[in-house]
Amino acid sequence: MVDIATRVWNHKWKIDPIVRSLIDDDFYKLLMCQSVFHNHPDTRVTFSLINRAKHIPLADLIDEGELREQLDYIRSLSLTRGESTWLRGNTFYGKRQMFTPEFMTWFENLSLPEYHLERVGDQYELTFEGAWPEVMLWEIPALAVLMELRGRAVLKDMGRFELQVLYAQAMTRVWKKVEALRDLDGLLLADFGTRRRHSFLWQDWCVQALHEGLGKSFIGTSNCLIAKNRDLEAIGTNAHELPMVYSALASSDEDLAQAPYRVLADWHKEHDGNLRIILPDTYGTEQFLANAPDWLAGWTGIRVDSGDPATGAETAIRWWKERGEDPTKKLIIFSDGLDVDKIIELHSKFAGRVRVSFGWGTMLTNDFRGLVPNDALAPFSLVCKAVSANGNPTVKLSDNPNKAMGPEDEIQRYKRVFGVGKQVAQDVVV
Amino acid sequence: MVDIATRVWNHKWKIDPIVRSLIDDDFYKLLMCQSVFHNHPDTRVTFSLINRAKHIPLADLIDEGELREQLDYIRSLSLTRGESTWLRGNTFYGKRQMFTPEFMTWFENLSLPEYHLERVGDQYELTFEGAWPEVMLWEIPALAVLMELRGRAVLKDMGRFELQVLYAQAMTRVWKKVEALRDLDGLLLADFGTRRRHSFLWQDWCVQALHEGLGKSFIGTSNCLIAKNRDLEAIGTNAHELPMVYSALASSDEDLAQAPYRVLADWHKEHDGNLRIILPDTYGTEQFLANAPDWLAGWTGIRVDSGDPATGAETAIRWWKERGEDPTKKLIIFSDGLDVDKIIELHSKFAGRVRVSFGWGTMLTNDFRGLVPNDALAPFSLVCKAVSANGNPTVKLSDNPNKAMGPEDEIQRYKRVFGVGKQVAQDVVV
Repeated sequence: MVDIATRVWNHKWKIDPIVRSLIDDDFYKLLMCQSVFHNHPDTRVTFSLINRAKHIPLADLIDEGELREQLDYIRSLSLTRGESTWLRGNTFYGKRQMFTPEFMTWFENLSLPEYHLERVGDQYELTFEGAWPEVMLWEIPALAVLMELRGRAVLKDMGRFELQVLYAQAMTRVWKKVEALRDLDGLLLADFGTRRRHSFLWQDWCVQALHEGLGKSFIGTSNCLIAKNRDLEAIGTNAHELPMVYSALASSDEDLAQAPYRVLADWHKEHDGNLRIILPDTYGTEQFLANAPDWLAGWTGIRVDSGDPATGAETAIRWWKERGEDPTKKLIIFSDGLDVDKIIELHSKFAGRVRVSFGWGTMLTNDFRGLVPNDALAPFSLVCKAVSANGNPTVKLSDNPNKAMGPEDEIQRYKRVFGVGKQVAQDVVV
Repeated sequence: MVDIATRVWNHKWKIDPIVRSLIDDDFYKLLMCQSVFHNHPDTRVTFSLINRAKHIPLADLIDEGELREQLDYIRSLSLTRGESTWLRGNTFYGKRQMFTPEFMTWFENLSLPEYHLERVGDQYELTFEGAWPEVMLWEIPALAVLMELRGRAVLKDMGRFELQVLYAQAMTRVWKKVEALRDLDGLLLADFGTRRRHSFLWQDWCVQALHEGLGKSFIGTSNCLIAKNRDLEAIGTNAHELPMVYSALASSDEDLAQAPYRVLADWHKEHDGNLRIILPDTYGTEQFLANAPDWLAGWTGIRVDSGDPATGAETAIRWWKERGEDPTKKLIIFSDGLDVDKIIELHSKFAGRVRVSFGWGTMLTNDFRGLVPNDALAPFSLVCKAVSANGNPTVKLSDNPNKAMGPEDEIQRYKRVFGVGKQVAQDVVV
């Protein structure tokens, strides 16, 4: 029996929207948004798309009209009653009312602000300018739209069975990863793959496959919509965006040196337990930890997001020991460039010495490498970052100079202020 | 939107029937059935299931009640109006009214006769006894039911995503075969995989994948229901069943020696063109061709179904040359134990020297080797054969002694009558 109504409904769509909900977003974005809403509601920030993979000519691959339609569709979204109820009533990290009534009222009335799109050569310039709590919510949807439109451009000439087999291969690949991970004793792993996913439906599939295949080892997803729909935990804490903007707002070098700690002081007031996770690498992990106030050593854990992850973890363990903390009670979250081999290696190296968990991103939700000619579906390094705040440029150094961002003179100033010495460059794949 | 009616309808089924149509059968069965209906309507024949893979304990794997339900369901089937219209009105091998009005009237009124099922040790004895044109139609459905019930027994404890990935792997495997075959110049290939298919839906998928992936190289399917539903050519000519029964009916050794030729004399009256295909191996190809009447050399082609296929094809080519025929105008159909490597090898060896086509069976529609623990879904050698006719046992020798069937003394008599010498044994995988 054909469901005529469903069929007619499907044909009524003028476009096939990629992002269909304001909570099709990473959970930490909402946590940070609330923090910014309380602490910096009027700061003017500019987010900008940055395609680190210059060899991928996004403007040739993606039709500008289609891109505008997708972005316009996102601007038409507002929080549904069910989404609002879920955010207001659900427990996150074991806590009720994670989001305050004031924040929820604001969020319920929000539509995303304007975007600025321009083709420059074979790339797009895409920027979002406005009040920080509003523009920051563009980051993940913008990335998801670009990544999925690029995929659609590649898929559009494929046959029906060819397509089915493409997904069959990708499914098989994900499942083999599940099988490789399922026997790791005490593994804890979450999906962090929203921003660079192949598509929404594919991320949804991957999350469900992990849920079935890994059982209790799969602790949840960063994607709020999928967490809500699939009754899973929403996972995430905070990102580089906070120290980058706080630092850009600093009035002097002394003020700048303290900015990253002010971020965590604000966070400390709002959150406890597993949400107290330090992200130490924005301006170099070594110096950040060396200069950190003692109350930070009492936090639950550290997220290792750049540089060699084993080195980062050893640095964290050493630091906790120096500060008189017991590392076996601490949590290290690995979230940079993970795939199965790396997860297995890090798990076997650190399980028992610290509590370990993994935020698995691109190679979970977008491992289509080698599945089509010219590797045209391979993931690539696309980011959307806060590039200025109240007119000042932002800077990121990270533990990998290949991930550094900002004007060259500002980079040098930050290096000096934060005392960053020689760094080891690592390839940025995704 | 959930289609409530479809959902309720699906839950109303007491069983999930495996064979849902009397034309979910190989086309050659219907051609042979018509021939038998005209020439031997009253011959009493017994068909019997033979599991050559004794290590597969079918009676332990398959519940007897479920098996009976499936067989009973098949007995409840009769030809639908649409199926009848298709058989009456469609062109087969370019010919209209392939099936006579008398045969169609009989077929429209047919229900399959009783079956006899008994558990013996860890195997089932399953036999069908009755008028030849009726019981012969049990062969393919019985095999399909047993093969699919065995698969269901293996699949029933698997998770939802585990299942999806299992099929994803199988789809990927079929598609890799398609990709390996798609560039073979002038390839002609048909699906012959009904009898040992993994399941109906899976065969249907494989056929459609071949249709999309191979284009004109894919010439059709032996399965009438799939040919009808997917608007493809129904493919097939005749089988060992005919010479086996004709031979069992022979009244003397001299009569026996002529029986296989009588089969083809009857066929000659009914069919021409691409339906005039000799299946020479029932009692040894060499002697069959050496002793064949000259009019057989005028037939269109030879099907090579046992023994080393290249040797069989060389024998055929030599024979045509000896009889003054031009082999490049003749057709050789390979249909035994084929998989991609063998198809590529035979195609490259014989394309140009003769017209070549392939009837691809088990390794197309049931290549689940290695996909589950203990290889519990691997195909195995299950057949359903005419074992007696009017009380006389049937015999098959074929070009591979491992495929020989019948009482030992009768095998020796047939070897003597047909002058079969030493044969090379080949493993029977499927």
